[in-house]
Amino acid sequence: MAGPFSTVSIAGSADAPEEDLAFARRLGYLLGSSGYTVVCGGGPGVMEEACRGARDAGGLTVGILPGTDPSEGNPCLDIVLPTGLGLGRNRAVALAGSCLVAVGGANGTLSEIAYALQAGRPVCCHGTWSVIPGVAQAATPEEAFSFVEECGRRRS
Amino acid sequence: MAGPFSTVSIAGSADAPEEDLAFARRLGYLLGSSGYTVVCGGGPGVMEEACRGARDAGGLTVGILPGTDPSEGNPCLDIVLPTGLGLGRNRAVALAGSCLVAVGGANGTLSEIAYALQAGRPVCCHGTWSVIPGVAQAATPEEAFSFVEECGRRRS
Amino acid sequence: MAGPFSTVSIAGSADAPEEDLAFARRLGYLLGSSGYTVVCGGGPGVMEEACRGARDAGGLTVGILPGTDPSEGNPCLDIVLPTGLGLGRNRAVALAGSCLVAVGGANGTLSEIAYALQAGRPVCCHGTWSVIPGVAQAATPEEAFSFVEECGRRRS
Amino acid sequence: MAGPFSTVSIAGSADAPEEDLAFARRLGYLLGSSGYTVVCGGGPGVMEEACRGARDAGGLTVGILPGTDPSEGNPCLDIVLPTGLGLGRNRAVALAGSCLVAVGGANGTLSEIAYALQAGRPVCCHGTWSVIPGVAQAATPEEAFSFVEECGRRRS
Repeated sequence: MAGPFSTVSIAGSADAPEEDLAFARRLGYLLGSSGYTVVCGGGPGVMEEACRGARDAGGLTVGILPGTDPSEGNPCLDIVLPTGLGLGRNRAVALAGSCLVAVGGANGTLSEIAYALQAGRPVCCHGTWSVIPGVAQAATPEEAFSFVEECGRRRS
Repeated sequence: MAGPFSTVSIAGSADAPEEDLAFARRLGYLLGSSGYTVVCGGGPGVMEEACRGARDAGGLTVGILPGTDPSEGNPCLDIVLPTGLGLGRNRAVALAGSCLVAVGGANGTLSEIAYALQAGRPVCCHGTWSVIPGVAQAATPEEAFSFVEECGRRRS
Repeated sequence: MAGPFSTVSIAGSADAPEEDLAFARRLGYLLGSSGYTVVCGGGPGVMEEACRGARDAGGLTVGILPGTDPSEGNPCLDIVLPTGLGLGRNRAVALAGSCLVAVGGANGTLSEIAYALQAGRPVCCHGTWSVIPGVAQAATPEEAFSFVEECGRRRS
Repeated sequence: MAGPFSTVSIAGSADAPEEDLAFARRLGYLLGSSGYTVVCGGGPGVMEEACRGARDAGGLTVGILPGTDPSEGNPCLDIVLPTGLGLGRNRAVALAGSCLVAVGGANGTLSEIAYALQAGRPVCCHGTWSVIPGVAQAATPEEAFSFVEECGRRRS
């Protein structure tokens, strides 16, 4: 089960293939079931599905939005945080979690991976960005979940 | 009781007089009792006391930190969000709530008031910044709470 | 004449009355004539007129834009810096100068004044925000220019 | 020669190997000689050497600093812009130029590459990040300079 600081950042595209969406939903479910809070950029696609999964499992979800209007958040958010920073909010997403899981994603996701690595947050990637040095790889949501759990054990 | 988008931003100094601290704690308690989520800058002083009150009442608390280290948040936060933006995080604090209550505070608090007003969020001040045009004033925590409730009624 | 660190921040509205525009243009001219670099938010109105004046006098002008598109800057900028931070760029404008002059302005300008004061940058206001404690007042562009010169003398 | 919007962003480490420093200095010189303005994060290492080269050639240099203190900028900056955003300033560095050249660099540099690509700015890498899809590669400063010139031709 999740410990006291048990927030996980999830990154990925607003417009993602079905495989990434299903991965995100399942990962969110596993995280929510174990008491983790899911933080993401608050948009659709991978972000929304991770939140949907977490919510279905009774977990808490947080969206750090690029715009200033809270109604632009996806419908699966418990806490909606408009920032007005545009993609500048990606750094806040990357720093929010004790680790970051990137599910597919393009260059916006890459900025989140870079910021997480720079700040010493462990990063796990499914798909696109597995080429980046220093990131773990997850073929399945279960592997990504094990990565998150392992990060928690190392800290405690 | 709080409606679906029921987040309130609280601003104020890390180093505040006892009267402001007591005001913040009582206001936090009133908000938490009614189901509002309290968002603040995550520091000590007014921020911590508002969270303490909200927590005592069973409410949810969010801290948007200036630094990158989650352990720098005050001990009364449920959700800790390091941003690494320094006082640039003040805009995110100001935008988070459907309204902002400023309890005393200095120039950092003034930046939050300015951003909230600019984005059309209603603002209520206790003490220092009551001179700013367009802000409501609250002599007591109960008056500030009524202001928050009234903002909610106007939106729905 | 301006010394080695001789950048001045100018704040004010994109949509300003003619009196503020003329004030900004004249102030920009005085600054540019004396070798100051003018930094502003890069938009129209007060920002553009301050740059126009500075340019007419052979001074250098910098615009820190809210958006990501450099073509959105006003036509009197030598250095165009898109930030993508929206009004989050106001803090960078406030910090850029060794002092800040606010010419009229609304709540966005107030956020710049707040950030400048918080960071210990001297602030001079013409019009709107002269009520803020700790700011100097300038009835004319010449008075604002004297304020800038005096700030420089105090530092050296 | 450089056209009307002729700003180039340079990214790289504060603590870089001599080969990267020499690359940056030579590239800066080539850019400055042709009228380009060099924008960087304002720190030491690659950033400083790029500015040194540009300055030696009579070019203009801009540093977008992470902190709030202008005296923290490297000694080769004409325009010093403290932001207080920490590494959040990386996005502004990435967006400043019509293209980005990354000379070596670690995860901070990666965030700048990611943001530049995301915003449609062409990116050229020397060393570390040549593995990123969509970036050009430069073995020499002359190749990087040709890349910058080619970007300009494509736009005009």
